[in-house]
Amino acid sequence: MPYELYYWDGLQGRGEFVRLALEEAGADYVDVERTGSSAMMQLIGSKTEPHIPFAPPFLKDGDLVIPHVANILMYLGPKLGLAPKDERLRFVANGLQLTITDAVAEAHDTHHPISNGLYYEDQKEAAKERSAEFIRHRIPKFLGYFERVLNQNPAGPKHAVGKELSYVDLSLFQLVAGLRYAFPKSMRRRASKWPRVLVLAEAVEQHPRISDYLVSDRRLAFSEDGIFRHYPELDRIG
Amino acid sequence: MPYELYYWDGLQGRGEFVRLALEEAGADYVDVERTGSSAMMQLIGSKTEPHIPFAPPFLKDGDLVIPHVANILMYLGPKLGLAPKDERLRFVANGLQLTITDAVAEAHDTHHPISNGLYYEDQKEAAKERSAEFIRHRIPKFLGYFERVLNQNPAGPKHAVGKELSYVDLSLFQLVAGLRYAFPKSMRRRASKWPRVLVLAEAVEQHPRISDYLVSDRRLAFSEDGIFRHYPELDRIG
Repeated sequence: MPYELYYWDGLQGRGEFVRLALEEAGADYVDVERTGSSAMMQLIGSKTEPHIPFAPPFLKDGDLVIPHVANILMYLGPKLGLAPKDERLRFVANGLQLTITDAVAEAHDTHHPISNGLYYEDQKEAAKERSAEFIRHRIPKFLGYFERVLNQNPAGPKHAVGKELSYVDLSLFQLVAGLRYAFPKSMRRRASKWPRVLVLAEAVEQHPRISDYLVSDRRLAFSEDGIFRHYPELDRIG
Repeated sequence: MPYELYYWDGLQGRGEFVRLALEEAGADYVDVERTGSSAMMQLIGSKTEPHIPFAPPFLKDGDLVIPHVANILMYLGPKLGLAPKDERLRFVANGLQLTITDAVAEAHDTHHPISNGLYYEDQKEAAKERSAEFIRHRIPKFLGYFERVLNQNPAGPKHAVGKELSYVDLSLFQLVAGLRYAFPKSMRRRASKWPRVLVLAEAVEQHPRISDYLVSDRRLAFSEDGIFRHYPELDRIG
């Protein structure tokens, strides 16, 4: 039975971190909302489902409903051959993924610092302030951290954890791609600070299945409905 | 060898979710920063540690360094007898914990909507807006969700997952306690909407080891240096 991924149709968003893992593994999966189904909101609103998710994305594997990106990847990683074999390192991988989760949430909040329930235009001034802080302090803090993680990986700097490709590497690629989309000037200016992170992102992009995926119509485009949004007025070089 | 918990001295903060699990289990642990040690920042800044954490809290179990609350609890849960025995339900537990993580992050951002690097006083106007949204929309969404989770748990409404106490129940207690501290008026006014959540929080508070802990000097007080802060001007009844 194929894995069922539930996420908003038309958006990369948080679902993309799961899609990349499923694609790299060549796994059998259905991107349910893209089939025109309305099952996602039904499941979230269900009054009988034993384990309801709070929000998309979530994965269904048979009866089991698994919400949250890092949780889905921790569940899928070993099954897809994208997690360290050493069980202890799986908690290292999950820790790294949760830091990526935090970086993604902060990237989102640059354009929605006050509320998800308001339009960007109605929180634009706060968004400018938050974006300036994010560019000046948070991007360097997050990417500088992952640069150190790669440098200090006992198995070498090609991977975030262990000596083989893991879902964490795929997610780092996506984080970098998203930040470059949202803040192209700021990212270009500072690229030289995180050479290993950028080498890793490039290597993931060249992986055969990932590069096929990226040019397929399964890969949605970044857009101003997603998490990483390009508003030129927020991309100020700090 | 005792577990070593690393978190800022003097704050409940995110460390508290881990402390509650260790305390409920009667586990042997050291709250390292409270011993006057400076090991936490050394480890975060280490150039040789194989698996550096991004930020506190993190747990050390021997050589293994495990960052992020949900990750620590997923690791400790089975060892402390505070996770479901069914391995599939452990992913349900982790999903619930990650929703608590998100609620906690949003509670934090009510007083720091622009940046952690600025004082509250310098982002007070944005904080008022964000708090109003949080009280009006997000608290009901999160606690309403957990009310449904309890209602729909096939093992009964006394626990968030499975038929026995888990770390998720302990964390729900802490979330409710924190929200009540930060937003007492708003929480009092709406308490009747989430009866099962409040019954669970009360039950956890009465657990012998938790009630002993809560009156011990190991339990720090809530304060305006923590995640849940009581600023009366933010507690507007929506």
